[in-house]
Parts: sequence; C-alpha cells; structure tokens
Amino acid sequence: MDKVRIEHDFLGEKEIPHEVYYGIQTTRALENFHITGTPISKEPLFIKAFAYVKKAAALANHKCGVLSKEVTDAIVYASDKLIAGEYLDQFVTDMIQGGAGTSVNMNVNEVIANIGLEHMGRAKGTYNYLHPNNHVNCSQSTNDAYPTAFRLALYWKIQAFIESLEALQQSFGRKAEEFKEVLKMGRTQLQDAVPMTLGAEFHGFSTTIREDIQRLHEVKMLICEINMGATAIGTSINAPQGYPQMVTDILQEISGVPVVLAEDLIEATCDTGAYVQVSGVMKRCAIKVSKICNDLRLLSSGPRAGLNEINLPRMQPGSSIMPGKVNPVIPEVVNQTAYYVIGADMTVTMAAEAGQLQLNVMEPVIAYSLFNSLTFLENACYTLQSKCIDGITANEEICRNMVMNSIGIVTSLNPILGYEESASIAKEALATGKSIHEITVLERKLITQAKWDEIFSMENLINPKFINI
Amino acid sequence: MDKVRIEHDFLGEKEIPHEVYYGIQTTRALENFHITGTPISKEPLFIKAFAYVKKAAALANHKCGVLSKEVTDAIVYASDKLIAGEYLDQFVTDMIQGGAGTSVNMNVNEVIANIGLEHMGRAKGTYNYLHPNNHVNCSQSTNDAYPTAFRLALYWKIQAFIESLEALQQSFGRKAEEFKEVLKMGRTQLQDAVPMTLGAEFHGFSTTIREDIQRLHEVKMLICEINMGATAIGTSINAPQGYPQMVTDILQEISGVPVVLAEDLIEATCDTGAYVQVSGVMKRCAIKVSKICNDLRLLSSGPRAGLNEINLPRMQPGSSIMPGKVNPVIPEVVNQTAYYVIGADMTVTMAAEAGQLQLNVMEPVIAYSLFNSLTFLENACYTLQSKCIDGITANEEICRNMVMNSIGIVTSLNPILGYEESASIAKEALATGKSIHEITVLERKLITQAKWDEIFSMENLINPKFINI
Amino acid sequence: MDKVRIEHDFLGEKEIPHEVYYGIQTTRALENFHITGTPISKEPLFIKAFAYVKKAAALANHKCGVLSKEVTDAIVYASDKLIAGEYLDQFVTDMIQGGAGTSVNMNVNEVIANIGLEHMGRAKGTYNYLHPNNHVNCSQSTNDAYPTAFRLALYWKIQAFIESLEALQQSFGRKAEEFKEVLKMGRTQLQDAVPMTLGAEFHGFSTTIREDIQRLHEVKMLICEINMGATAIGTSINAPQGYPQMVTDILQEISGVPVVLAEDLIEATCDTGAYVQVSGVMKRCAIKVSKICNDLRLLSSGPRAGLNEINLPRMQPGSSIMPGKVNPVIPEVVNQTAYYVIGADMTVTMAAEAGQLQLNVMEPVIAYSLFNSLTFLENACYTLQSKCIDGITANEEICRNMVMNSIGIVTSLNPILGYEESASIAKEALATGKSIHEITVLERKLITQAKWDEIFSMENLINPKFINI
Amino acid sequence: MDKVRIEHDFLGEKEIPHEVYYGIQTTRALENFHITGTPISKEPLFIKAFAYVKKAAALANHKCGVLSKEVTDAIVYASDKLIAGEYLDQFVTDMIQGGAGTSVNMNVNEVIANIGLEHMGRAKGTYNYLHPNNHVNCSQSTNDAYPTAFRLALYWKIQAFIESLEALQQSFGRKAEEFKEVLKMGRTQLQDAVPMTLGAEFHGFSTTIREDIQRLHEVKMLICEINMGATAIGTSINAPQGYPQMVTDILQEISGVPVVLAEDLIEATCDTGAYVQVSGVMKRCAIKVSKICNDLRLLSSGPRAGLNEINLPRMQPGSSIMPGKVNPVIPEVVNQTAYYVIGADMTVTMAAEAGQLQLNVMEPVIAYSLFNSLTFLENACYTLQSKCIDGITANEEICRNMVMNSIGIVTSLNPILGYEESASIAKEALATGKSIHEITVLERKLITQAKWDEIFSMENLINPKFINI
Repeated sequence: MDKVRIEHDFLGEKEIPHEVYYGIQTTRALENFHITGTPISKEPLFIKAFAYVKKAAALANHKCGVLSKEVTDAIVYASDKLIAGEYLDQFVTDMIQGGAGTSVNMNVNEVIANIGLEHMGRAKGTYNYLHPNNHVNCSQSTNDAYPTAFRLALYWKIQAFIESLEALQQSFGRKAEEFKEVLKMGRTQLQDAVPMTLGAEFHGFSTTIREDIQRLHEVKMLICEINMGATAIGTSINAPQGYPQMVTDILQEISGVPVVLAEDLIEATCDTGAYVQVSGVMKRCAIKVSKICNDLRLLSSGPRAGLNEINLPRMQPGSSIMPGKVNPVIPEVVNQTAYYVIGADMTVTMAAEAGQLQLNVMEPVIAYSLFNSLTFLENACYTLQSKCIDGITANEEICRNMVMNSIGIVTSLNPILGYEESASIAKEALATGKSIHEITVLERKLITQAKWDEIFSMENLINPKFINI
Repeated sequence: MDKVRIEHDFLGEKEIPHEVYYGIQTTRALENFHITGTPISKEPLFIKAFAYVKKAAALANHKCGVLSKEVTDAIVYASDKLIAGEYLDQFVTDMIQGGAGTSVNMNVNEVIANIGLEHMGRAKGTYNYLHPNNHVNCSQSTNDAYPTAFRLALYWKIQAFIESLEALQQSFGRKAEEFKEVLKMGRTQLQDAVPMTLGAEFHGFSTTIREDIQRLHEVKMLICEINMGATAIGTSINAPQGYPQMVTDILQEISGVPVVLAEDLIEATCDTGAYVQVSGVMKRCAIKVSKICNDLRLLSSGPRAGLNEINLPRMQPGSSIMPGKVNPVIPEVVNQTAYYVIGADMTVTMAAEAGQLQLNVMEPVIAYSLFNSLTFLENACYTLQSKCIDGITANEEICRNMVMNSIGIVTSLNPILGYEESASIAKEALATGKSIHEITVLERKLITQAKWDEIFSMENLINPKFINI
Repeated sequence: MDKVRIEHDFLGEKEIPHEVYYGIQTTRALENFHITGTPISKEPLFIKAFAYVKKAAALANHKCGVLSKEVTDAIVYASDKLIAGEYLDQFVTDMIQGGAGTSVNMNVNEVIANIGLEHMGRAKGTYNYLHPNNHVNCSQSTNDAYPTAFRLALYWKIQAFIESLEALQQSFGRKAEEFKEVLKMGRTQLQDAVPMTLGAEFHGFSTTIREDIQRLHEVKMLICEINMGATAIGTSINAPQGYPQMVTDILQEISGVPVVLAEDLIEATCDTGAYVQVSGVMKRCAIKVSKICNDLRLLSSGPRAGLNEINLPRMQPGSSIMPGKVNPVIPEVVNQTAYYVIGADMTVTMAAEAGQLQLNVMEPVIAYSLFNSLTFLENACYTLQSKCIDGITANEEICRNMVMNSIGIVTSLNPILGYEESASIAKEALATGKSIHEITVLERKLITQAKWDEIFSMENLINPKFINI
Repeated sequence: MDKVRIEHDFLGEKEIPHEVYYGIQTTRALENFHITGTPISKEPLFIKAFAYVKKAAALANHKCGVLSKEVTDAIVYASDKLIAGEYLDQFVTDMIQGGAGTSVNMNVNEVIANIGLEHMGRAKGTYNYLHPNNHVNCSQSTNDAYPTAFRLALYWKIQAFIESLEALQQSFGRKAEEFKEVLKMGRTQLQDAVPMTLGAEFHGFSTTIREDIQRLHEVKMLICEINMGATAIGTSINAPQGYPQMVTDILQEISGVPVVLAEDLIEATCDTGAYVQVSGVMKRCAIKVSKICNDLRLLSSGPRAGLNEINLPRMQPGSSIMPGKVNPVIPEVVNQTAYYVIGADMTVTMAAEAGQLQLNVMEPVIAYSLFNSLTFLENACYTLQSKCIDGITANEEICRNMVMNSIGIVTSLNPILGYEESASIAKEALATGKSIHEITVLERKLITQAKWDEIFSMENLINPKFINI
C-alpha cells in the first residue's frame, strides 16, 4: 500500500511506484511511446544539457523575482545532481515520442522536482512545495527548453566528433609523411593516369578531413543560437521582462557553451534550419570518409589479383570457408556507418519539412537521428584511425613497378612530342605490350636516353617539372 | 589461471574468459567493431534463424556423409537450444560490422561448437572434437549462411508487421462502419470540395492499408529465395553433390518457412534486389501511414481554431506551459517513425549499390536498417491502432454544418446549370458571404425548392445520384 | 484586331492568339508556371494517353445519354488527332505545375474543344457548341482524368523500359555463353576468393536483370487500376449511373491497356501507392544496373595498373591531356543515370507523403520524376547494351594467370587438409610469395601431384566437384 | 564532297559537317551519350564560364612562354565570342555524359579552335595551326578546367538565386509590416496555442529566408576554391612553373569571381565536398520554402471549411468540375520544386560518394543536378513572391474571432492562477463549449473584469507583458 504514490494531472490520476523520481506525465509517456525501445538515458549529454537549462532558468527566475530562494536552491541542487550524471536511469522516455519533446521535458521537470523535494525534506510527489510545471518549468515551455537542451547536447557531441576527425586527420598526415617517396600510378576513372606518390594521396585524405573539421566548427556555432524565453510560440508569454537575455547569459556562463539569444523568437521556435545544416555537414563528412574507405579497399585489394599497393592491418580472419583470407573489415564498417548517416539525413529532411505553423513537432526524431549519426560516426572515425590507418604499410616495389610498366607515363612526353604523337605511342604500347621507353627511345628514337632519364628521374616523377624540348 | 582458455586462429592467440561460449573470432569482432553499441542479441529472431540454418546444414551434411552422427547430434542439440531462445547473451557482435557478416556467422559457429562440446562432455575450446569452421560451418560460407538466416528473420518479421497492419486496417474498418452516416466536406488541395462521409474517408484508410498488406505478402515470398550451398561465391566449392537442394528442403521443413533454392547461385550470392524491394515496400507503408496520420492531425485540429471534425483519444497533457492543451501525440510519433523508415531505405539503397563483384559486403547495415524499420513501424502501427484509431469520435454537428455552409456544394448544380452559371453563383457566394441556397433558389430562382431538396437530401449527399434537370 | 479572340473564365477575360488551340485556362497556366521550362509536349505518350481518356469519356457519356452524337463525334475526332500525334505543340504547360494537374487537363480539354469546333465548322472559342468543361470534361474531374492518363502513359513507358532491359539481359546472356570457359578469380570484399568463370559472372548479370524485368511486369499491372468516374473526390458526383465501369471498359478496349476500375474510388483518388511502387522498382533497377557498371569499370581497370580482365569497347579518347587514355565512359554515364533515378525516387517519396485528405496535389512532380526516370534509364540501358556490353572482350590469359598465381585456390584443399592447415599454407604463401602448389606438394608434401592435378584441373576449377581425401 | 571535313583522333577518322564548329571528339560524344536529350547549351552560364577559363589559360600560357601571341590572340578572340553568348548552339553534348566532363571540355576546345582558326583566316579543322588539345587545352586537363568552369557557373547561379530569395524575403517583410496588428491564434502541433500577430508570423518567414541567404553567401565563397594548374591529377604535370597561381589570378581578374587556388591540388582535383555543401544548403532552402508554402496553404484553407485566415491571390480556376473553386496553385508548385531539389541532393550524394581515387568521374550528374536545382528554385521563389506573397490579404475578423473564442488564451492566466487551476478551466471550457472569460470571471470569479481587460487588451495580446496577481 505504501509502495506507490498517487499523482494526478488534468486527465486523471495514476499510481506511481514510490521509488521512482519521475511522475505521472512520464508514466503516461512510458505507456504511450514504445517505438525504438531505447530510452533517452542513452544520451547522457542530452540529460546533462537539460539540467543546465533548468538550472539556468531557475537562477534567472529567481533574479526576476518569480521563484523563491528555497525553490531555486532545490532546483539548482537537483540539476547539479543530473549534471554530475546521477539519476540517469530515471530518464525512461523512448527516444522517439510524439508531443514535440513535452514528455522529455516533463521527465526532466518531474525528476528534478522529486530530487529537489527530497532535498527539501519533503516526500516525492508533494508538488505544492516544488512543482514540475509551476516551478521547474517556470517561464519555460517545452518549445524553448527542449530545443535549447538539444542544441547544447549537439554542441558537445559535435565537439567530440571533431576530435575524432582530428585524430583521423593527424593519422593520415603521419602516413603522408611516411609515404612521401613511394612512387605510384595515379588513376582517374579507374584507368591508369600519371605518376604520383602515395604520400600525396594520403596528404589528400588529410586535407579533405581538415576541410570537414572547418565546416563542423561553423555549424557548431550555428547551433548556439537558442530561443530561451520564447516560451510557447516565441511571444514570450508568461516570461518576466528581461528574462530571455538573462537566462541566456546564465546558461552561457554555467555551461561554457557560447549560446546567444535568437533575434526573432517566433522564427527561432519553429525553425529547424540549424539541425538541417548540422545533418548536411554530417552527411558531407560521411561521404568523404566513405570515399576514403572505398579507396583504401581498392588500394589494398588482392593480395594477388588486385592492386595490392598497400597493406591494411590484419584484424581478423576474413572468411569462415576460405583459409588465410583477410578482409578490409575496418573500412567496411566505416562505409556502412556512413550509409547510416546519409539515411539519417533523409529522416532529418523529412522531419524538418513537416514542421507546421509555430512549431516543428518532429524534433524528437531529428534528435534521435543526429545523436546517432554523431555517436556512430565518431566511433567509426576512431576505429578507422586506430585499427586501420595507423597500421597501414606500403608495398613500395609493387607501386613503383606499376608506374614503370605503365602507358600513362607517356603524358610526360606530351609537351615535347605533342598530343598526337604521344597518343600514337600509347596506342602501340597497348596493342603490343611494349613499354613506352622501348617505343620512344629505342624504336622511334624520338628522344635521347639522356632526355628520358631526365624526364623519368624519380625526382621529376614525384614533383614533375615542366620540361620542354 | 583457470579463468580463461587460450584459443587461436591464423592471426594468433587470445585468452577467452572461461564462462563465455563464443571464441576467439567473436572476441576479435568485439574488439574491432564498436559502432552502435547494440549487440545482435537484440534481434532474437536473427539468432533463431541462424540456428535453423546451422541445424539444417548439419543434417544435410550428415546425409551427404561429411559429418559424423556424433558431431551432427551435437550441432543439432546446440541449435535447438538457440532456437528455444537460450544463450542469447552470447551474441555480442555489434549490429553494424565489417566482414559481410563473417563475425556474426562465426559468433554463431563458436557458440554452437561450445554448447555442443559441453553436451559431448568436452571442454569449451576443444575444437578438434567439434570445430566452428570444419564442422558447424561445414559446406557453408558466411556468404550463404548469413543471407539465408537474414532472410528467414525477415520473413518472420514481415509476417509480424503484416499482423500489426491487419489490426490497424480492421480498426479503420470498424470506424468506417461507425461513421458511415457522418456527412462532411471533402477537401482537395486543402480547399473545400464536395460532400462525403467520414465513414468513406476511414474506409479509404482501410483500403490503402489493405493494399500495402498485399504488397508485403508479395515481398515476403520474394525473400524466400535462398542461396544455401553457394558457399563462397556461388560455385558451391567445398559443398557435397546434391547438398544445396537437400539443405534447402531440410531448412524449409524444420523452419516452416517456404524457402526455395535460387537458380543462379552466383547471382544470388551478391544480389540484394530482394532487400531493396522489401525496403521499398516498407517505405511505401511508411508513406501511407504517415499520410493518414497527417490527415488525422488535420481533421482533429483545433479545438476552436481548427477543423475539429474528429476527436482523438486524449493520451497525455500536451504542454508544459499551456494548461488543458492536448496534442495528437500518437499520430505524431507514427509520423516520426515513418521518417525513420524512409531514411533507413536510403541507407539500404546506398548499401545495395555499393556491392562489388561476387559479394555485397554491406549486408550488415542492410540488416540493421530493415530490422529496425520493421520493429519500429510494427510498434508504431499497434500504437496507432490501440491508442488512437480505436478511440476516435466524430463531431457530427460540426462536420454537417461545414457542408451546409459550404460553397463547394454548388458542384451538384453543375449538370443542371452548367459550369459557368455555377461558377458565377460560387463567386457571388464567396464575395458576399451568402449561401448557395440563397443565391440559387431565392434570388436567381434557377431551381425550385423541391429540386434543391432532392439534390441536397442527406441520402444524395452521401451517395450522389446523377440528377439532370 | 482579328489576330486574337477573347475568352473568359470566372476570374475574367483574356486575349488568346487566334492561331492557338488552347484557351484561357492554359494561358493562365503559362503565365503562372515557369519552373522547368520544359512543356508537357515533351511527353508525347502523356498527351496520347490523355486523348484516349477523353475519347473514352465522350463515348461513355454518349452511351449514358449525357452527350449528343454531334458533340461526341467532335471530341472523338479531335482525340484521334491527338492520338495520331498531331497538335503536339499546343501542349505548353510546364512539366511542374500547381493545381494537381488541372492545368494539364484543361490544356487537353481546350485543345480538343477547339479542334472539335473547327471540325464542326465553328470558330475556335465558340464554346457554347463544344465546351472544354461541360462537354470534353463531362463526367470527369482532373482528379480522375489526370491520374488515369498518367497511368496509361506509365504503362507504355514501363513496357518500353522493359524492352530495353530485355535487350540488355540478352546481351549479357550472349556474353555469358561466349565467356563460359574463361577461368578467373572470384573476389569477395575486393579480396581474392575462389575461382569462377567470366561466363558465370556475366550470367549473373543476366539473371539479376531478368529478375528486375519480372518486378516491372508486376508494377505494370499495379498501375492499371484507375479511378475514372470518381470525379472530384471519389463520390462520383456528377457522373451518370454506370458510367465508371463503362468508361473503364471502353478505355481498355480502345487503348489496349488492361485497365481495371478501383474498388474504393475515394481511396483511389488520393492514393499514390502505385507510383511509389513504380518508383521503388525503378530505383531497384537503377541500383542493379549501377552495381553492374561499377563491376565493369573495376574489371576493365588498367590497362597496366588495374585488374584488366576485360576490355570495354573504346568509344572516345579519354583525356584532353593524357594521350592514348580511354575511359569506361558508357558505364560511367549509366551510373550517373542511376543516381538520377535514385534521387527522383526521393522526390516521389516526398511528394507522395505530402498528399492531404482527398487528393495528392503533388502528382505533377511525381509524373515529372517518373517520366524522366523511365526515359533516362531506358536510354541508358540501350546505350549500355549497344555501345558497351555487345563489344566486351576477355583477356583470358590475364584472367587465368591470376587464378594460378592466387592464394585463394587453397580453399579447394580445405575439405582434405582442414581449415587450419590450409590457413597455415595460405599464411606462408602470403609471407614468402611462394605459390600454393610449391608449399603444399613440393615442400610439405601434403598431397600428391596427381591429386593436385585432379583438384586443379580446368574442369574442376570451372565446376568444382566435392573431392575428399 | 565539300560539305564535310575529315577529322581524326587516335581512335580513327570521322566526317564532320562543314558548318559546325565542334569536331570529332564532340561528334563521338553526340553518338555516345543520349540520356536526357538536353544539351549543355541549356546552361549558357556554364559555357560562358568555360570560355573565361580558356581565355585565362591562354593568357597565362602566353605569359609562361608556351603559347605564341598569334595562337593566344585567336583563343582570346574565340573565348570572347563565347562570353558574349555567340555560338551557343555548338554546345551539343548531353547534360549527362560519361568521361568526367572530357566531352564538354573537348566540345569547348574544338569550338574555340575552329572559331579561332576562322579568325586566323584558316579553314576549320586545320588544327596544326590551332589545336584543341595542344593549344586551347594547353597546361590543362579536363580535371582542372571542367570543375573550375563548373564552380564559376555555380557562383553566378548562386548569386542569382540569392537575389530571388532577397525579393522573397523583402516581400515577406512588407507583409509583416502590413499585418503587424492582425491578432490571430498561434498553433503548435495543429492545436490552438496562444495569440500572436499575423505580422509576427510573416516576420518569421522573412527571418528564416534571411538566414538561408547568409548560408548561401558562405557556400558561394566555398566554391571559389579552384584547382587550375592541377592538370591530370593534381601533380601539375605538363604545366609550366608558376602557371597555377598565374592562371588563377588572371581568371579572377577577367571574370570578376574571387577564385582562389586550392592549397592541396591532389585533394582539390578529386574532392566534391563543396558541391555537397552547396547541395545541402539548397536542400535547406528547399525545406524552408516548402514549410512556408505548407503554412500558406493551411492558413488559406477553406473558404468555409478551413482556417481561412488569409487570402492568396486567385490565379486560375481551380477545378475542371467544381465551379468557383480556386486553389493555392503557386505554393503548390513551389512545394513540388522543393521536392525536386531534395531529390537532386540525393543524386549529388550518390555521385559524390562514388568518386574513386584521383577523380570523381560523376561530376556531370552533379552539375546537372545543381544547375537544375538552382534554376528551378530561383524560378519558384520569384513566382512565389510575385504571384502569391505580394498579393496576400488578411481576414482580420476571422483571425480575431478565433482568438477570442479560443481556449488557449487561458495560458495567460497561468502565472496568476497556476497551471492546475488553469488546466481545470480549460477542461471545463472544452467540455461545455463555454468561453474562458465566462468560467474565470463570471462563474469562478477568480479574477476581476478589470484584471481580465488588462490581460486581454489588444496590446498585451500582441506583445504579452508578464502580469502577476
């Protein structure tokens, strides 16, 4: 009999197990939403972000004179517990819910209220002393508190993702240095083109990731625009004068995230442009990383019937039937993660377009998609760096032989012999299997051996100089 | 010291905790793949399907004379344990992995081997008696065992999803009957069109879901084509004569799934067409259900400043700031689930297109996407049916008043007065706020009151008869 | 002064150039919609389909007694002209328009009316004798006429696309036969796997296309369900008794397309499920064809620093700078077309989900997307067949040498030596560069030369028999 | 006999009609690529951009001493003709081609060569005097010239698109001012929320578009990074010392586009990150504009059975069957254009991910997609502004009545009465149909009439002040 407490809302009453810190509205959400089976506690940074929002709101409300010191202290106490990572198991709402985040917001409001009540020496559920709506949610609506918490969490997760990309970029940079004298054939359209170095190829990987990092820093700032104080739809109804800027300043100070208040709160409350931009940049990163992994798998193909220019670290037996086979499992898992991110961007797109009038009710699935994309791709990038790139070795001799045996090196003769003569040499080489050297120097005697040596010196192959006749 | 056993593969040795049933290759997978944090044990039907595959293979191998009775019995015993749902926690591989499923297949092979070994009275890890590769995986490759298990699991999950759609369809059907005399305005392009009944609208929902069910039955059969006996790439290398058809027959018999052997095993081993088709039909379902939920949210908009034709069950308080507000949270969560499914289809698309040569290495992310889509949308459909559709009520008077007050009813006068005269009436009604009746009968005296009453009788409004002058 | 005629609708009057056959509503559409710059005349089959719809409606209306013989004859005459491909330049509406197809339907109605009027000896624009709405559109709405015409056009275009796939499939079939004894390495995950024939690989291409053809035949039947007689929203308002079935029967007879009347006209009028399914199957085809082209580009990579197993026909110089370079331009253009189709499927998805209440107003962009996908991919398939597949040749010696030089052939020793011994051989081969033969027969003396010859005979490599020790 | 000239390349000879300015390689492209049926001449800015590239290259080559003055002058002369828009019909290559743009580049090279030859007093085709490859393409590859021209054209098209968004944004701004005192209900989740003004709603539209414009300016700068001088793969093979920076400077000067040279030419040559980013921002714009159009269609729904808060300009009769019906055709066409753009982004995504090694061969379909997206959405935005937004009027009385009749206004009582009491009032209002005023002031007497008047003054409704008891 004493194992439950009775809570009520305007739809009725419910028995709530005594030990839990959430209340009736969270309980309704638990009953209503069973989609993914994954609770929001799986995103601890989201809970932490929400706690910062609630703490900032309480402090601002106190300054504005609408919350008493006692109530404010209790909310701050409870919020700090959540910031410290405690009570995580109380966040039971499914990651995908209806209600535009109301259930998550109320889950937070209720847990904070009950932690606060206990701290005040009161029983859980005695909300007249500390009320989830009237106090914890004071001067707020789900429609400002939820997106603000979401943006804080995104900020931190983008930062963490950037760090994984930096690790990856640096790994590529080290390999670029290591392979800077490994001569190899460049390929365009999968056809032999002209020589380059393996180092230059890896330097390109490093550069392309570095550019993504820049884009991520840009979107990280973009999502710092928040709408605290907008309350229900952006008119700031029920918020004290001056509160929006005040709560923003406090939130910036306590969280360390450089949040700024949106100029047009009506727009900011329904807009999802920043999420779309984050998702777009995540997709861009996914495309880049996937392209790199495709290249790594191609370059390491073989060992005998492939390109075999590089060796990836051998991570696990590759086949349940083919003995000795080892597969590029790390790039493969990264490719697949990239496809997840690209699909998630489509989910974000659909959800963003579905916003109506003063709110986009589909934000929870946007949050679910972006959180997963950031987590999965961060994991994938660290995996790629530590279990693959760091251990790559080059098959220098194979690389060099493909250059020397190639037809593509005829391109270097272009400025001297002209496109048409060069093409004729190439054609003969292809038809007969002869080398470019044989045809050019020995048979057609178009250039001297000395000139040949100058053009095809290792130095000139690696850094081509313009050589005229 | 006795808490671990040493296992080896051709890459080296590893200590394996004594109590676990998986072995060295699963352990490597655990180390290599940390992307989603969700283990394959979260898809019990996938493990069950794999167990059927291993059991069928053992029985067929025994018939072909390549596995002894003792070894066969041990594999069958272990497989049956897995089919019964035991040892689920031993399936620890991340849902997204590189290696085209090899790690999942080896996870199954190792767990079966060690259960079997214990059953034989042997110690875990003494693989010379019962070997994960030589025996459990006998006459198989990941490249046939994995997709076959995947297809079995898909078959069961599609069937379960169909059942959720049937429940939804029947719920719509009951409401169609209930609302069959509720007259309301039909709308095209969000503009008032011509009258219809709410029952007909819900009947349409029922019909559209019924058509999806038919499409699902078709794809359910499509994924029954399997490639057991293809082994590595479809040449059936290392499989005994007659084995492919034999293992297929046995698998059909013991699993109850009407699997058939693909005619072209080379093609079947690399093809993902059936997965793409399943995903496409799932997307179709998602679009349909999402469109319905959009309609439900529109029709229940209000209560005062919206259409307010129907009432959805009130599931939870709708706002942390606006008292009394109740939102259409169930349709909203279904919309979001639909967007997940549409995004997942894009992931499947990317993965399917990325297949190369004799295998599509991206199957694990296809499995992850389809399993989630099926689970989430099944959950969503049951939620929609039980927590929303079943409890919908109509606001009959509001519906009827909108018809009588409308301009769109002028369409019924078209065959009598012609398009141009009718348009002129409509134009005047719009400009002046007068009713169609007022202009047509009282002012312009174009038809008699008796004719009006015939045309606009409830019966004729619900089932329009063609009425000429 | 006599160069224009004055037409009016309920929004006002407009001067229409005397020589054009369209009227005021088409003129408004021309002014309102300028998006793609491509008029609907670029889809002659759509105009033809519309003409069949109008002809069938006129004949059914006449049977029902609501159109006179004179008017009916005039409509039939004009429709037949359009069916014959005349007056195509009169269809000026932009491919993407608002209004759910009303502008296209009115474009057709107006052109037919004016052709009919001239045939009746009347002046263009004297619509009291033959009216675009009252007569040509009699018993119809855009909401049934437009989707019906769209479906007819889709039927024909799907059929034409099927024919291009059949040509492609047969081309692959011929190559499968031609290459049936070309031994080559199969590859999984881009790593050397086990031997197969090039013929089997091309047979797989043929099979996979054949399966797509089957799916296309299925969707071709699916889109035969039409909603003629539904009129505005499916209640058949303003349509004579019996007309829906009658017009369907006539349309089937005169067009030769096996159209059937939908059971639930309310549902059929707003549903886009069949379009989504067509688009999904088109995407499936695109994925398949793209995967094949990826393979062709890989297999023909080189000529010296790639796989170089096959030669694609040399279609054009491949580089403006690299002499002699020839690229796989035909597969490349097919890949890109496939990406177009996949993108268009996303457009269809968004548009289908955006349908509201009794109509999906986004059908024009669905039509635009599907028409383009079908046209472009049909063009691409014929191009692929005639300019690439038909002319492919094999580099037999290169193919065979890669097999003999491979480590993957050790798999054949698996049933004899066991997975672990075989893996050890493979490992040594990889480390030392030795051949499997050298290690197995000469050094470790694990099998005799005779056994080796039996296992690695050409016959057994092409069609592996199960060989036990 | 004199109607054709004979040209040759290393694959053979062809007859070229005498009058055309393109040559053998363009002719091969014409034969090889028939996909969209749309020639590149449909993008005049692309041709213009290419001409600037060729002119800049010629000038830089002359400075470097590798092109004579005579040849340089001829190239400059011909380029200037193209810049002036002449010879557009000579650009016949299909918009989607294989070869990574080689055919487009050669189309330009050949046309310039032949215009130049005529200017030199030579016959077309006498390439020894002015050669498409040796001279016009000197120090270039398709792989630098094509993407550079593509980026220039994108720059101009993005700028033009920005201008259309500015027109749209200003139109929204004017309406925001016009409607700033029109009180209306705000809605969240399609349910009545709290009051706001129609002006604030339109101001939000203006703000959201303004943010997109900022994003477009950012990506406009991003695509200014070019790789001229990279030649084949980024090693600058065959380019004179100093040429890359020199040609970049000249191009910037003559085109006025602030192009900069990429730091890592290897990376820049294969990277498509900037295109992905442009496409992502275009998708963002499409989502925003589509959301706005969805809102406009909702707000103008009716006229009798919808929200009917605003009137869109009546552009055309809306139905072929329903007299007087007028539909929101302009927002509808904009929605569909947005779906096109979203689909095109998926095409770009697939194409970008498909890049391999030193080149992304799929650039032509990226160009096709981005060019269309920019053109179509620019057209759509101007259409929306001029044919819809500028003419919108408000139904002030309807808007105000919905506020006064609403339950949502109870939110204003929250700070005074608390959430629970307010919820109880709301619940009673919903159940009984009574107004909030009636229950609060007259029945429950919770606040005085004077307080009520203060809270619900027009001024406070439009700009809510925080009012405590």
